[in-house]
This record gives sequence, C-alpha cells and structure tokens, in this order.
Amino acid sequence: MTIRLIGYAFSGPVLRVIICLKELGLPYELEPPASYQSLKDEDYIANKHPFGKMPVLFDGGFRITESRPICRYLVSKYQGKHNDTILIPNDVHNAGLVDQFISYELSYYDPPISKLFYQEKVAKRFLNEDPDPEIIKQAREELAKVLDVYEKLLEGKEYLNGEYSLADLVHCPSTYYVYGIVTTHSGLWDSRPNVKNWWNRVYNRDVIKKSLEESKSFWENNENI
Amino acid sequence: MTIRLIGYAFSGPVLRVIICLKELGLPYELEPPASYQSLKDEDYIANKHPFGKMPVLFDGGFRITESRPICRYLVSKYQGKHNDTILIPNDVHNAGLVDQFISYELSYYDPPISKLFYQEKVAKRFLNEDPDPEIIKQAREELAKVLDVYEKLLEGKEYLNGEYSLADLVHCPSTYYVYGIVTTHSGLWDSRPNVKNWWNRVYNRDVIKKSLEESKSFWENNENI
Repeated sequence: MTIRLIGYAFSGPVLRVIICLKELGLPYELEPPASYQSLKDEDYIANKHPFGKMPVLFDGGFRITESRPICRYLVSKYQGKHNDTILIPNDVHNAGLVDQFISYELSYYDPPISKLFYQEKVAKRFLNEDPDPEIIKQAREELAKVLDVYEKLLEGKEYLNGEYSLADLVHCPSTYYVYGIVTTHSGLWDSRPNVKNWWNRVYNRDVIKKSLEESKSFWENNENI
Repeated sequence: MTIRLIGYAFSGPVLRVIICLKELGLPYELEPPASYQSLKDEDYIANKHPFGKMPVLFDGGFRITESRPICRYLVSKYQGKHNDTILIPNDVHNAGLVDQFISYELSYYDPPISKLFYQEKVAKRFLNEDPDPEIIKQAREELAKVLDVYEKLLEGKEYLNGEYSLADLVHCPSTYYVYGIVTTHSGLWDSRPNVKNWWNRVYNRDVIKKSLEESKSFWENNENI
C-alpha cells in the first residue's frame, strides 16, 4: 500500500513526519499542495485537513492528520517491520515517558523557537516584514529558561529518555531551524554542555542529518512555492 | 499500588486526568500543592514537574507529567482491568484517529476557550483584572469558526470518533468552563445541532457530569487555595 504525505518538505510538522517515515524505513510519496492559499479551499478542507493544515497522511485508503499523531500511528503500525529502529519502546512506562517528552517539546520547547524563527525567517520571507528586536529578545530569554531545564533533564543521559526515541525526533525540525538555518542563536545550545552534546548526537544520525539538510535549501534560496 | 495525583481539582489539565482515572475505575489520592507559588519551588521542580506545572502522577514509584500523556499512559496500562470502558480502541487506525482528535482539541479547540475563560474568570479571580471586551470578541469569533468545523466533523456521528473515547473526554474541562461555569457563551454550542447534541451526550455520562460539577464550586465560591 502506498503512503502519501501531503505537505511542503520545508514545513516543520511535515518534516517531522518525513523523518519518522525514514527512520521506520517506509517508502512514501510527497505531494506538495498547489499553493499555500489552496489549503483553505473547500476541496482541501473536505478531503484533506478540516482545519486547512499540513501534514496529512494517506496510508492506502486511511487518512490521518496532525504530525505527532501521524508519527505515533506510523510507529504503532510499522515499527519493527522494515528495520529494527525503536522510536517508542514496548514497555508501558518508557512509552509513557517518551510521550511526556513529546509534550514538553510541544508545550515549552517549541513556542519560543517558533517565535524566533517567525521573526528571523518567516516574516521576511512571506510578509516582507522586518524582525522585531523586542520579540526576539523575549523569545531568547524564554528559550534560555527552557534550555536550562533541558540541561538538567539531560544530565547523565545520551537522549531525553535514555535511548534514542520519538521524543528526540520531534525536536528536530524546530531545533534545526534556529540552530542550523538561523545560526545567530546557536550559542543558546552550545553554551549548555548536555544540551549541546544531545543535539550533536541527534543531528548526527544519518537519517536526521540528511532530512534536515534537504530542507535547508528552501530557506536559503529563493525557491517559489 | 497507590496512584497519587498532584494538583488542584479545579485546574483543567488536572480535571482531565481525574475524569480519566474515574472512567477507568482507578482509585487515586489527590494531593493539592501547598500553594500556587510552591509550584516554582526547587523541591517541586526537582521532584514533581521540571517546568513547575500540574498535574503530576505517581503510580507507585513511577512518575509521569503532562495531562494527555498521563491519560494515554493510564489507558495503556489499565484499560479493561477494572471495568469495560474503552477510551482508546485496540485497532491501530481508530487509535490513530482518537489521537488526531486529541490534537484538534489541543491545537484548535482549546486556545480560544482558554482566552475566554482567562478573561471571564481567571483574570478577575487571581489578578483582580476586568475582562477585555476586544479579546473576548476575537476569541468568540475564533471559537465560532472552530465549532463550525466541529459541526461538520460530528455530522452523522454520536462522538468524535464514532464511539465515545479519550478524544471526547479531553474536551470536557475547557468546554464545561465556558459552557457550564461562564454561561454567557453557551449559545456558541447550542446554536450548532451536532455540537450541541455531542456535548449533551458527553456531559451526561455519569462520571463526567459528577466530576465537572464537583469542580464548579471553586469557581462559584470564594474558596482559598
């Protein structure tokens, strides 16, 4: 059965699913929407995502939306089928903790990073707006506090839940955007040894490095969508 | 093994876990923190929640934080052990869709409701601030659009994923806050027949009605925390 992924590869949530598909060794076809505006078309709303968002995954006739639920679905259905990569452990306690760290990414880690990336790249690129230094300052302060917590969470651990998991994977798109594409904030990670070593370990996984670097060209060049 | 839940019963995320525990027929002990300020204490950060939040669940010696991961953990470990209530179906596709609807609640449904409840109750109660009519107007408009989508999602269905599930459950605290406690916005639900009937069905489950009504007294009386 063909897996079809609807979305742009440079979008963080789409990239999250692409990395998950690659980690599980699953072939897929990426289908970029006709345009950003088309996400609000009646047809897209009715047949793809009811809130007009990306990504949407079709697994044969089955449709599922929202990046983190899509990743958990792919793991539940396909983990261990094509390779031996474990993204969610079978043990109920460790699986619960992986889910908890996924929630930390969503609730605490992503919001300040999204603000920074919006200011530094998205606003300029899509709206031709200049960055607001005050918003950048506040987002950096908020992110610094979050990374202080991560520094403690990662004490004595190679990955968030000990072994590499979906918890580390979900952090990749946003971290790369504000560490590897907008490079002016990378010191926030590099000044914290546990955080720095964790990100280096995660980034240097073949699948992740390749996926992230492939997404870079959009933000560096003036590709049209 | 004793299950201990750290948090205030009137907090939405804590109430979400309380309902889940009751639905699964699990006994638990609720332990309210000493004060709101104590959530930022070194001891709480080190031994309860690293970001100083509620709820935190201890299942014997195992600790897990964040309401939705806690609920998924409880279902994985205990569903079917104490009663026959199914919150997440065994079928991988239906489980994925339940997860998707949980994400809709978090990403689209909760944000405008949280803004409304903050304006109408939280700001007055905790900060003695008056509501801002412009923020209320915008939040109502945003919520109306989300409920239009829900009206279509619920077409021909009794519950979000057909059968009652964790997807419906996670919507309960915030819906009740802005439908049953702050009652001025209930028309947003009642004017959409599918949404109205869905909420009535969910609310009228014994476990849910009782749990929600128990949380009401805090917001109606001047109880100290």
